Amino acid sequence: MEFDITAPTARLATAVADVTRLLPTRMVEPLLTGVVLTAASDGVLVSGTDRERGLRLSAEAVSHVDGAVLVPAKPLAETLRTLDAPEVRLVCEGSRLAIRTPQARFALPLLDIAAHPGVARPPARVGSVLGGALRAALAPVAAAASRDDALPVFTGVRIAAEGNRLTLMASDRFRLATARLPWTPLDDASIDVLLPANTLSDILRRIPDSAEVGLHADVDCAALTWEKSSLTTALLATPFPNTDRLLSVIPDTTAWVDADALAGAVRRALPFTGPHGLVGVEVCDAELRVRGVDGQNGESEETVKAIVDGGRPQRRYQARNLIDGLKAFAGEQVRLAVPDADRRGTVLTGETRPDGVELTYLVAPSRGGNPTQHAG
Amino acid sequence: MEFDITAPTARLATAVADVTRLLPTRMVEPLLTGVVLTAASDGVLVSGTDRERGLRLSAEAVSHVDGAVLVPAKPLAETLRTLDAPEVRLVCEGSRLAIRTPQARFALPLLDIAAHPGVARPPARVGSVLGGALRAALAPVAAAASRDDALPVFTGVRIAAEGNRLTLMASDRFRLATARLPWTPLDDASIDVLLPANTLSDILRRIPDSAEVGLHADVDCAALTWEKSSLTTALLATPFPNTDRLLSVIPDTTAWVDADALAGAVRRALPFTGPHGLVGVEVCDAELRVRGVDGQNGESEETVKAIVDGGRPQRRYQARNLIDGLKAFAGEQVRLAVPDADRRGTVLTGETRPDGVELTYLVAPSRGGNPTQHAG
Repeated sequence: MEFDITAPTARLATAVADVTRLLPTRMVEPLLTGVVLTAASDGVLVSGTDRERGLRLSAEAVSHVDGAVLVPAKPLAETLRTLDAPEVRLVCEGSRLAIRTPQARFALPLLDIAAHPGVARPPARVGSVLGGALRAALAPVAAAASRDDALPVFTGVRIAAEGNRLTLMASDRFRLATARLPWTPLDDASIDVLLPANTLSDILRRIPDSAEVGLHADVDCAALTWEKSSLTTALLATPFPNTDRLLSVIPDTTAWVDADALAGAVRRALPFTGPHGLVGVEVCDAELRVRGVDGQNGESEETVKAIVDGGRPQRRYQARNLIDGLKAFAGEQVRLAVPDADRRGTVLTGETRPDGVELTYLVAPSRGGNPTQHAG
Repeated sequence: MEFDITAPTARLATAVADVTRLLPTRMVEPLLTGVVLTAASDGVLVSGTDRERGLRLSAEAVSHVDGAVLVPAKPLAETLRTLDAPEVRLVCEGSRLAIRTPQARFALPLLDIAAHPGVARPPARVGSVLGGALRAALAPVAAAASRDDALPVFTGVRIAAEGNRLTLMASDRFRLATARLPWTPLDDASIDVLLPANTLSDILRRIPDSAEVGLHADVDCAALTWEKSSLTTALLATPFPNTDRLLSVIPDTTAWVDADALAGAVRRALPFTGPHGLVGVEVCDAELRVRGVDGQNGESEETVKAIVDGGRPQRRYQARNLIDGLKAFAGEQVRLAVPDADRRGTVLTGETRPDGVELTYLVAPSRGGNPTQHAG
């Protein structure tokens, strides 16, 4: 086995840590708890798989021979993380991979790379987006998905292309986030897939703003590729519900408000939202009134300046859903479109961002939309 | 009930948060989950008790009437924490305490202050120390205590005075930390008490460097007082073992080493310390060799520069204990005194600090002091 690279420690450490996070922690398949290091003339590729997902991250390195090794991921990640030497050498020594700095030598047993299932390669490319726009669009959408595996469709992000726009969409049934962003399709390739939201979230911060991110798909899996790195994941094999009806609302009332100011008010109402975590929002003249009412534990009322057009409805929301929705518009003005029917969702939108991303966030109201008034 | 104060939000919020942390979370005695606010002309006193411990923290406030209220601690702490208004008004309104800012009103139910057991007052003062020196001495000593309540004596910090020195001491049986610091006794009062380490740790960061901290004690309880604040706690009613024998070691070998460099090397050896977390330290010419040996998961060896006098012993330690001991000497050179008998503890000492604090940290070696050598 030949393997001998010298690499800047910090970047190699984060690449190994990110791949390690994706690997299974249980020892059902011991080889899958290992990370594959592949040395080439243009750097080192750090890769791993849990069979459902495969991650390949490129890192800067100088290599004198081509070669690949499989080593236990966790102790490698932990050792690289704690090194304070700026450069590290990884070199095969007998049945060990030695991690060397001028003062220290750490040695990990080599695992049998020939028995490793290999890390899936991306399927055919269908088009591309810009890294920064993808991050801005995907972060709030993926966060709206459910973490509960009982209903797989709500743990996914739907990614679909139409013309030169890509649409991302996720819901946990109580909220629905969608984002549209500029899309460069390849020939007449189309895409409409459902991918696990948490896998996408985990990898987002790896993608540089200026990177061209390729989107790849076939009938079984999809992948994101950027620079020399890639994430491949199996598709969630369930159709996403039709949501057109939910978002095509003609609002009775619209209110423009500072998203951070409203989120702050809802956050401060949290201790007063009672066992169901409900917050009341009343549209008034030139302001919104945010109320928490919990008979036992007190009550709260806060006003937030707003530009109001239309009626003066009152709605109740799950405070957490409203906070998450507003977070997607942090630093911006957000438009709340409140429909007449008090069981239809309130739609949050903002201005189109400079990178072409348009966000829409629907927050379902809670049953019994009129919160009890209380004497101040 | 009259109560009406206006206070800078941030400082009141941290005082309420600190008292809240000390309160019981279970509702066995509902009144104890409340915090007492006492308004006086010179500020507001925030206090609470779990019957074993009582904490009174003074905070800046303007008050127009004297008075006291009891309100649920957790929602008060949470509300104050999330406020972004720089000033807040707390005022009694009927059966509520209203928390008011220009845009918002939050209201908490008043609890029956007449039924509250009251927060214990400090017993008689026996002497004083300087805040900065107490923090420097107590932080590493309290951290050496055990968190396991099964043997209460090892969860405590012994505080004893002799002449113009105060001695703090704690052990979890595998390590023993002591600190001596300058002490101003009051008349001929003496003190030798055992106090819960975690209670002392929690309050340390509240104490300003320049504050004169009074130490108070009687047969049942002891207290720290500073500025207008105090912490009173019941004593742990067990005698602390005699430790003179352990610390009065004539070392066979001494090594001076940079504490951070050695701690870093031990930390990097952690993934290689196996199921028992043991690290080997070998004293060599002008260096220490730190080794982790875990047959299954590889091995490590790192050298750290040292000034060595005496023999060339090898010892094994619990890596975590050695790291904690070295942390007490962060940023300094530390002297390791290794006794001849390989079952006696290694004693860590440094220079006396400018504030007069002298630290001594004993780390017990692990049985079978000679780690297996391995071929590099």
